[in-house]
Amino acid sequence: MDSYLIQMNGNSDVHVHRNGNSPSLRKVKGRKPRWAVRASEMSKKTFNPIRAIVDTMKVEPNPNKPMISLSLGDPTVFGNLPTDDEVTQAVKEALDSGNYNGYAPSVGYQSCRQVVAAYYSCPEAPLEAQDVILTSGCSQAIELALAVLANPGQNILVPRPGFSLYKTLALSMGIEVKFYNLLPEKAWEIDLKHLESLVDEKTACLIVNNPSNPCGSVFSKSHLQKILAVASRQCVPILADEIYGDMVFAECKYEPIATLSTNVPILSCGGLAKRWLVPGWRMGWILVNDRRDIFGNEIRDGLVSLSQRILGPCTIVQGALENIIHRTPPEFYHNTLSFLKSNADLCYAALSAVSGLQPVRPSGAMYLMVSEALMSFPKFDSQCFCLPASCFEYPNFFRVVLTVPEELMVEACSRIQEFCERHYQGSEGAQDLECDK
Amino acid sequence: MDSYLIQMNGNSDVHVHRNGNSPSLRKVKGRKPRWAVRASEMSKKTFNPIRAIVDTMKVEPNPNKPMISLSLGDPTVFGNLPTDDEVTQAVKEALDSGNYNGYAPSVGYQSCRQVVAAYYSCPEAPLEAQDVILTSGCSQAIELALAVLANPGQNILVPRPGFSLYKTLALSMGIEVKFYNLLPEKAWEIDLKHLESLVDEKTACLIVNNPSNPCGSVFSKSHLQKILAVASRQCVPILADEIYGDMVFAECKYEPIATLSTNVPILSCGGLAKRWLVPGWRMGWILVNDRRDIFGNEIRDGLVSLSQRILGPCTIVQGALENIIHRTPPEFYHNTLSFLKSNADLCYAALSAVSGLQPVRPSGAMYLMVSEALMSFPKFDSQCFCLPASCFEYPNFFRVVLTVPEELMVEACSRIQEFCERHYQGSEGAQDLECDK
Repeated sequence: MDSYLIQMNGNSDVHVHRNGNSPSLRKVKGRKPRWAVRASEMSKKTFNPIRAIVDTMKVEPNPNKPMISLSLGDPTVFGNLPTDDEVTQAVKEALDSGNYNGYAPSVGYQSCRQVVAAYYSCPEAPLEAQDVILTSGCSQAIELALAVLANPGQNILVPRPGFSLYKTLALSMGIEVKFYNLLPEKAWEIDLKHLESLVDEKTACLIVNNPSNPCGSVFSKSHLQKILAVASRQCVPILADEIYGDMVFAECKYEPIATLSTNVPILSCGGLAKRWLVPGWRMGWILVNDRRDIFGNEIRDGLVSLSQRILGPCTIVQGALENIIHRTPPEFYHNTLSFLKSNADLCYAALSAVSGLQPVRPSGAMYLMVSEALMSFPKFDSQCFCLPASCFEYPNFFRVVLTVPEELMVEACSRIQEFCERHYQGSEGAQDLECDK
Repeated sequence: MDSYLIQMNGNSDVHVHRNGNSPSLRKVKGRKPRWAVRASEMSKKTFNPIRAIVDTMKVEPNPNKPMISLSLGDPTVFGNLPTDDEVTQAVKEALDSGNYNGYAPSVGYQSCRQVVAAYYSCPEAPLEAQDVILTSGCSQAIELALAVLANPGQNILVPRPGFSLYKTLALSMGIEVKFYNLLPEKAWEIDLKHLESLVDEKTACLIVNNPSNPCGSVFSKSHLQKILAVASRQCVPILADEIYGDMVFAECKYEPIATLSTNVPILSCGGLAKRWLVPGWRMGWILVNDRRDIFGNEIRDGLVSLSQRILGPCTIVQGALENIIHRTPPEFYHNTLSFLKSNADLCYAALSAVSGLQPVRPSGAMYLMVSEALMSFPKFDSQCFCLPASCFEYPNFFRVVLTVPEELMVEACSRIQEFCERHYQGSEGAQDLECDK
């Protein structure tokens, strides 16, 4: 498409220029009609900074060093983290049955909703099939949750740094985004005072992303309780992005936020993408937690209506869901987490040793954030320093994806170190760190 | 979900009541916050009449006669129209390769876009990979096409009778719908004068659905040229819903509308759903035809941006696309069409013989429309007369889906006949025609 010209420079700004024409009237009554087809305002307001970079970027490759991509949160890129054979087998069985080629209900097959409900249900937050909406990936889960909770002109509270899709979707729908701060010095906990200060009468929901992309942080039970106390006091429903749920390292415990509250209504978004390592399959879900009946039928009906726009996720993956969830062996999850933990430790140690960089130790998900605030980089174009955290509204940091094979993680850290040392000393030599395609 | 109470009666009206509360302010500054979570206006404006019926309807079954569903346009319901083994095999190979588990670009893999482009490209309407956007089903293709072409407050021109999703999507986005008439006495051709009279300075696009759902009609080359002449004269771009493309009976020829114009910009929407008999797989596409560069980069960029909201269709189906398109044997398509043609003839002949009913002979797709305008039905509740064509903005007709096995088609026609004769004579006996679940 070649639609974006992307320039990047050392302080991680991302500029995207579009070839826009000023709008003009297509037809005026009484005159001869002429062609003047304009793209809609909504399409112009829709901007996904991560996809704009990774879908369209062309960086001049360094002929001597093959690229190591540390940018996209896709665990499948290097082939070292395949999904489990049971997962693949489950889809084949769904295919062979011939029972999953037709339309499902737009919120998903009842039996699949039941499977997801049973898997995530617990005494503190019981779920039934009717509390589950299946979606085309967690992205659509977040889209539907936002679309049902917020009107144009309202606002949502979004973490900074945070996943860029929240802003992308909100702005495209005319919803204002208010960023609340995460505190790197407190393992990326929420600045609760700042959060609460942002609530006003137009606040439609609070997005809580735990474990966090891009931070790799995992909130403690007591911190989650404090977040819930704010939501409860201010009567703001929560959109919980829990796509990295259960992806936490051994020393931590993941608490689904809905299990810690009896009154705050929560739409929890998740999916197969990260834990089962199949992000391309687009199988997501919304879990409706509403034990005080605050959402009531209205929000549930709204989610059903909105799901009818594009009719839900691929049926062969739906048909495989039960076996995917029940047959995937515990070792699979364990091995993924061991690998991520090992890479996290390795990357943390290597980058801690680099003058000017300050990594923050992650506890889960598959990312690690690095502060480059102490660096004094010269400006340099066509150079992607991993994914600049400006994509996450957080300049002077960059995000490292921890899913690359260990030897490449070592090599990437060594390139980052070499590069930083060169630039830290002010030299302007060859550009040999090209961590992205 | 039990969210809708649906009543239907003999003249095919569909009433849907919702438990709505009047909106109220959630918080007033200075007062104690209280919970008052309201569903968004968009979700309330989103109403899909077909899904509202088929996803939620509960009709008291007749214990003596099992239901024959003639309602949902899903060719897989009865198991008599399986997809081809090559199609299933192609997905298995994509799964086994392990190459299609990660994120694709949000508009689809370049190689898959290339495959679709090559398949539909022809000298009159050449297509390249960059002219193809892969989507989560044809529904999302239509959603993206509408979302990029129209702003709230603009209007679109939509066929009556026509597929209900156009109105569902448009109203949810604040786009006005203007219906142009199709003429049953002219094999459902467009009333071109009526069409042209509806164009005004706020008209964002003209939706042309060929072959037609619900009519089963196929436009001739000369009629398509006349439609294009209107679009060209009025400078209105076309959204062509061609999901039933190539599904026409032997005596007819299907002409993709873009092959007949050199100047009208056209977004043609299609997918695997109907021709390959896998509607649940959610694999659709938009073909961008814009040889005069009227859409220009702006519409293309807009489509790319909008696709980044939910990141495209399931990658394992994308990975199978090339083999699905190249390996499906011609006999498969031929057999489907022979079957549909045979059922169409059978149904047409049977219902023509029923006093008060007037079927319109179809030429393609998988539907047949029947006029019940001559009938004088008494009102009766909880009775679905196939899918009432009020779903298609066309009262006094009903739509028959032609994909049921032949013996059930015969039985259904006979039930319809028996039912009509009873009610035509004014009797109010047992309700034994329950064509839908």
